[in-house]
Amino acid sequence: MCEPRVTVDPANWVCPLPLRETSRIVLGHGGGGVLSEELIENLFLPAFGSAGVPARDSALLSVGAGRIAVSTDSYVVQPLFFPGGNIGDLAVNGTINDLACSGAQPVALTAGFILEEGLELDVIGAVAQTMGRAAARAGAPIVAGDTKVVERGSADRLFINTSGVGVVAAGVEIAPERARAGDHIIVSGSIGEHGLAILSMREGIDFGTVLVTDSAPLHHLVAAMLAVTEASGAVHALRDPTRGGLVAAVVEIARAAGVGVELDEPAIPIPAAVTSACSFLGLDPLHVANEGKLVAFVDPKHSGAVLEAMQARPEGAGAAIIGRVVEDHAGIAVAKTPFGTTRVLERTIGEQLPRIC
Amino acid sequence: MCEPRVTVDPANWVCPLPLRETSRIVLGHGGGGVLSEELIENLFLPAFGSAGVPARDSALLSVGAGRIAVSTDSYVVQPLFFPGGNIGDLAVNGTINDLACSGAQPVALTAGFILEEGLELDVIGAVAQTMGRAAARAGAPIVAGDTKVVERGSADRLFINTSGVGVVAAGVEIAPERARAGDHIIVSGSIGEHGLAILSMREGIDFGTVLVTDSAPLHHLVAAMLAVTEASGAVHALRDPTRGGLVAAVVEIARAAGVGVELDEPAIPIPAAVTSACSFLGLDPLHVANEGKLVAFVDPKHSGAVLEAMQARPEGAGAAIIGRVVEDHAGIAVAKTPFGTTRVLERTIGEQLPRIC
Repeated sequence: MCEPRVTVDPANWVCPLPLRETSRIVLGHGGGGVLSEELIENLFLPAFGSAGVPARDSALLSVGAGRIAVSTDSYVVQPLFFPGGNIGDLAVNGTINDLACSGAQPVALTAGFILEEGLELDVIGAVAQTMGRAAARAGAPIVAGDTKVVERGSADRLFINTSGVGVVAAGVEIAPERARAGDHIIVSGSIGEHGLAILSMREGIDFGTVLVTDSAPLHHLVAAMLAVTEASGAVHALRDPTRGGLVAAVVEIARAAGVGVELDEPAIPIPAAVTSACSFLGLDPLHVANEGKLVAFVDPKHSGAVLEAMQARPEGAGAAIIGRVVEDHAGIAVAKTPFGTTRVLERTIGEQLPRIC
Repeated sequence: MCEPRVTVDPANWVCPLPLRETSRIVLGHGGGGVLSEELIENLFLPAFGSAGVPARDSALLSVGAGRIAVSTDSYVVQPLFFPGGNIGDLAVNGTINDLACSGAQPVALTAGFILEEGLELDVIGAVAQTMGRAAARAGAPIVAGDTKVVERGSADRLFINTSGVGVVAAGVEIAPERARAGDHIIVSGSIGEHGLAILSMREGIDFGTVLVTDSAPLHHLVAAMLAVTEASGAVHALRDPTRGGLVAAVVEIARAAGVGVELDEPAIPIPAAVTSACSFLGLDPLHVANEGKLVAFVDPKHSGAVLEAMQARPEGAGAAIIGRVVEDHAGIAVAKTPFGTTRVLERTIGEQLPRIC
């Protein structure tokens, strides 16, 4: 009655919940009673593995004097499982990347689950196991958690909130406002895979090639970038181009810093599969969400060294300088096209691809 | 088109969102583009008021060397507005109370919203304004946020995750395991109001008297308790009796510490309206959720002074010693009834009242 049915997870999670004759979530799993305890002790904690800490309402951490970064993200991606990952590693990596883009190294995560009555326990187990592995890999244990259950039809299976705490080393000053004219803009790798992987899975569109999410944690990459330019403060601003894609990321920084952005469109690494899928769908790859990439605004005197440090790591192997910060057109980003023309990069008004993360 | 319609909020929130001809959430508000920005700048930030911090993916805090507490909770209470409060102050106070029960003073909160397409902007505004006031009152600004939108029917209007960070003073050691035989058990006031207020609102049951949530932040109360016994470590364990009520709180501590709990049932402050509503519904008030109360396990040499300090504060005015920790029946809580008999306090298996918080 508790067989593995989630074949998308390579771990073939087998639910160990021993006591109740159910393979699905019931309202009582959110009641704060015996069933809640069983769910934590027999499902979440074994699934989280070494990254899980026995459930408490809150957890204590020791930190040195200094600055901590705090971040939160809720995840509603649909479907829950997609090529290259699931909502679990997306939730862990996404929160780690928000911290990393403030220059922080993650030290702890929290996990809040909202479950729909009737959801298969095996699905939760597979997701939680993926979260545990991602958290362990990042060195950021899941120190506090919460589970709520709502009636069938009141949520779409499973939503996760991950919040995170990171530590910012002395001297690190990374903020959107710090971008300045002359900065080189570096992207850490190719763009567009995550959004199209979700879309192809959800809509059953076969692009002729499997597009796989790029979901990955970026804090080691950021640490390597900061190590190159230690004490120079050469890395001014970082942003992970998730919802809204590359355009939203650079426009937000341009607006925060009151500078212009000029991208060299041919320099932006876009896989052929992304280009062809986007042209088929009428999408601009510069608007498509990524979950394992960052954009860096770097002092041009140090950008070569930063780029090399990025390329030396697997998650930055495809890094490239894709543009620069200019004094003109403050708050506006433009792209030099392959045809020598210039186009303004407008953020989307609303939703290009709903429930992408 | 954006008139106040949420009359339950005394503030008569008027949505200032200026640009789009909509009074409701659309999928685009979660897209990371212009609509998302408008929602943050024209709704969330004005509503949060002084407790809001301009939106960032993550926020930096300065902390002294020492320990921080981290906590997370998701809120799915139904209905969103109920006598004495709404999901907004519930979410802020609940997370503050988790921190307070670790002995931490809150320093920052995060807010993650999951919104259903079609939800009235006025509802979000009223909830966010309540959150902002509760956070400001607690001195814990909302430093990071996130908003996701799902299609109509994929969530029930509005879910909130609040995570929190608090600072634990040196010498403070509060943990369930620290409860020990001889400890006096103190409850900070009357029990049962929150659960019954939600139930009466949701089910349209008129108990003849208005039951109002007890939702309140408890960190000042905890600070006052700790100040009395400074350096003595007399406050061993704290727990806010939310889901599962007083029974779940004391049983969890009894199990964690490997001790027995004995409550004096007649000493437990239960309002007459709670007693009569519970007898009407066949509920045990000791299982009903509270959102502004705590249970303390205190060294008996200091319990009188702690009780006095609690009673001197409005949120502890109704505090009472309701029992003691015993060496017998480790992990089990019992109550001495008014009739001189003893009953075992069993946690509920599942859900007594779903979506209570």
